[in-house]
Amino acid sequence: MNFKLKDIISIRDFDKNDVEYILNVAEDMEPIAQSKVACHKKDGKILGVMFYEPSTRTRLSFETSMKRLGGDIIGFNQKQGTSIQKGEVLYDTAQIVSQYSDAIVLRHDMEGAARFVADNVDVPVINAGDGAGQHPTQTLLDLYTIRHVKGEIKDIKVAIVGDLKYGRTVHSLVYALAMFNVEIIFISPEDLKMPDEIINDLRKVNCKFSIEKSLLDNINDVDVIYMTRIQKERFPDPTEYLKVKGQYAITKKDLVNSNAIVMHPLPRVDEICFDVDKTDNAMYFKQAFNGVPVRMALLDTIIK
Amino acid sequence: MNFKLKDIISIRDFDKNDVEYILNVAEDMEPIAQSKVACHKKDGKILGVMFYEPSTRTRLSFETSMKRLGGDIIGFNQKQGTSIQKGEVLYDTAQIVSQYSDAIVLRHDMEGAARFVADNVDVPVINAGDGAGQHPTQTLLDLYTIRHVKGEIKDIKVAIVGDLKYGRTVHSLVYALAMFNVEIIFISPEDLKMPDEIINDLRKVNCKFSIEKSLLDNINDVDVIYMTRIQKERFPDPTEYLKVKGQYAITKKDLVNSNAIVMHPLPRVDEICFDVDKTDNAMYFKQAFNGVPVRMALLDTIIK
Amino acid sequence: MNFKLKDIISIRDFDKNDVEYILNVAEDMEPIAQSKVACHKKDGKILGVMFYEPSTRTRLSFETSMKRLGGDIIGFNQKQGTSIQKGEVLYDTAQIVSQYSDAIVLRHDMEGAARFVADNVDVPVINAGDGAGQHPTQTLLDLYTIRHVKGEIKDIKVAIVGDLKYGRTVHSLVYALAMFNVEIIFISPEDLKMPDEIINDLRKVNCKFSIEKSLLDNINDVDVIYMTRIQKERFPDPTEYLKVKGQYAITKKDLVNSNAIVMHPLPRVDEICFDVDKTDNAMYFKQAFNGVPVRMALLDTIIK
Repeated sequence: MNFKLKDIISIRDFDKNDVEYILNVAEDMEPIAQSKVACHKKDGKILGVMFYEPSTRTRLSFETSMKRLGGDIIGFNQKQGTSIQKGEVLYDTAQIVSQYSDAIVLRHDMEGAARFVADNVDVPVINAGDGAGQHPTQTLLDLYTIRHVKGEIKDIKVAIVGDLKYGRTVHSLVYALAMFNVEIIFISPEDLKMPDEIINDLRKVNCKFSIEKSLLDNINDVDVIYMTRIQKERFPDPTEYLKVKGQYAITKKDLVNSNAIVMHPLPRVDEICFDVDKTDNAMYFKQAFNGVPVRMALLDTIIK
Repeated sequence: MNFKLKDIISIRDFDKNDVEYILNVAEDMEPIAQSKVACHKKDGKILGVMFYEPSTRTRLSFETSMKRLGGDIIGFNQKQGTSIQKGEVLYDTAQIVSQYSDAIVLRHDMEGAARFVADNVDVPVINAGDGAGQHPTQTLLDLYTIRHVKGEIKDIKVAIVGDLKYGRTVHSLVYALAMFNVEIIFISPEDLKMPDEIINDLRKVNCKFSIEKSLLDNINDVDVIYMTRIQKERFPDPTEYLKVKGQYAITKKDLVNSNAIVMHPLPRVDEICFDVDKTDNAMYFKQAFNGVPVRMALLDTIIK
Repeated sequence: MNFKLKDIISIRDFDKNDVEYILNVAEDMEPIAQSKVACHKKDGKILGVMFYEPSTRTRLSFETSMKRLGGDIIGFNQKQGTSIQKGEVLYDTAQIVSQYSDAIVLRHDMEGAARFVADNVDVPVINAGDGAGQHPTQTLLDLYTIRHVKGEIKDIKVAIVGDLKYGRTVHSLVYALAMFNVEIIFISPEDLKMPDEIINDLRKVNCKFSIEKSLLDNINDVDVIYMTRIQKERFPDPTEYLKVKGQYAITKKDLVNSNAIVMHPLPRVDEICFDVDKTDNAMYFKQAFNGVPVRMALLDTIIK
């Protein structure tokens, strides 16, 4: 066992060995995740789910992961109906939930919330998204998806498309990919391009990357197309949004000569046309499924 | 095993053999449903509960059914706190939940929603009510209740009382009863009578039925009284509602010479007086319980 | 087995033997509550959770308790999304939930609700707080906490501080403490003092007690300091609240010469300063944990 982390807060706490360790355990979890084998490893163990923000995917996949391992969950998925309404602070709520559970998974709207909780409770904490901050389990399942399809995360080209400025998912992903020998192509509207700070970090670690405007011009040349939502609210001028939107969307026709897998953290709005769903390129629902073996691997590793 | 359905969408997909198969399995489930015996048949299996509309009875009885079988559930019971708030369409949410579960049970406000989901996901789907559409598990537990008390669904008279126009429950029940050798008596206000289309369908299959106005005149002559709620909102004129309401309600005194069992899909408002609860006629709470063995039978049959 | 109660409605139904029986079973539950040992005693058993009012602590600790015992839960933690919205009365909802479960735990805003439900369903009922009424499991975990730290509930001084007028928690606690050989000191603002009725009841059973105004003057002289929230809403004049508030709050500095344990039913607002949390006096989070072994003891005892 060469995994050193107690808490899962940021993908930047992981080195390449940590990532590979978790992805390997995740592979072992496949038969359980696919419901081919029942598992009792975590019988009687409880995961405390503290979700201060709405979520279907992340929450349900953590719940399935814990339950497929034989464990169970307690918690809340909104502020309503909890002591938070009575004015209880995060610190106290976390103390309480930690008394009733063997690990905590936290989604919060404030950046740094997960680190704060991890520093103050005795049980392991998994960050399931903290505002503009980190969402490391999403990054791990993204990496798992690429490795699962491509065999290795190596010698491939990954296009990251859409809102590269505000999306926490792609920021984390980029730092993770930089640990592996891959080439990244950033494709976004000018107003939503990858922040300079991250670009500079990539340069420091000699990550190979390029910056492009057109998705279609690059679509046949990449192994992975990682799509993200472009949110209307990001544009001061709605006509600017309408102009840009179609260029960073993808249809079945666009993929006719492409072998790339199409990924998306979901939910999508209209950046991936429904006709893509039945193509061999479509990997976003499988990617969602991959949250299960990956989160099982994390839960199995950090819950004693 | 002579049960052919993968999904449970409409009672009209069932033939008499299918119904009897499920009712027989349900009988076998009684000791587990009554908590006399622990069961591990569905250890590690997950039921995805997608409830877009409020429900106590149906949701909780599915949850108990799955848990008594050794399995567990994930899901949501309202739109709030899910990706639906972010604008995710039913198709995508269903894809996601299907990745995390071994079967889906869906309640939705749009007719046809269950069939749509069943056609688009790989796991079995159970319809727990889709708007004005179908609610087949309610019908199966109604039939189970009659069979459980009467021994056979045969040579009996069933009065169906109240709102026969809008109630999806009674529409499904009528089609199901028509498969068996029973006589149906429809008792309702003129404005809420059974739709002509269904009456015509009954004629086609030679189902014996009659249409009556008075509940009291028929109460001593039937084996089953199936009550339903009459909703004030159905009447353009509130005085019309008040006039009608009392005539389609039932008290202990009304039943003094009757051996009929009283059923109701619940929740009731005031169409069954509380003094009926302690009579031998009252079967509506037992009927609610019967949702457990029947839903266990369905879950056990369709989840591999 | 010398425990006689079927339902857990009020601490006043308990005699000293009943209390001690439950506290002893709770001690036996510690290894399971601490997640050192998996337990399958309640495999397949279902606890019906009916929470009509928001709660984190009580609800989650019941859920953890049931799940650590091998059982599971169904239910709701708010009125929204249930048949209550359709106008279903408590009686009917309780009938339904009792059909699906082996015991019910109820929190309701109306005093007497738990007794009413217990009188009308066949399964055991646990009161998790009914309005201004009782909250017996809180009292039991309070007693357990004192016994756990002090060895015996005997020959000790317990200060009860803050809002002694409206707090149902302290009312129940006082009646329970009166069964044991302890001395109680009531410390509160004049407007929030312990009701005369309870004071008279204490006199009848020869319970030793005194009434004080100052927390600081008594802090080094007691074994237990039981803090409660003082709610602004209780004061017609907000300046009166501000004047009083600080006097019934506690800081690390205040405790420097005290060996007393500090307890609180939580959530706290600002009556216990965060700097107390790391002192040896602080017992409120451990007290919250103690809800698990105590509730496990109750569930194990009343669910067959």
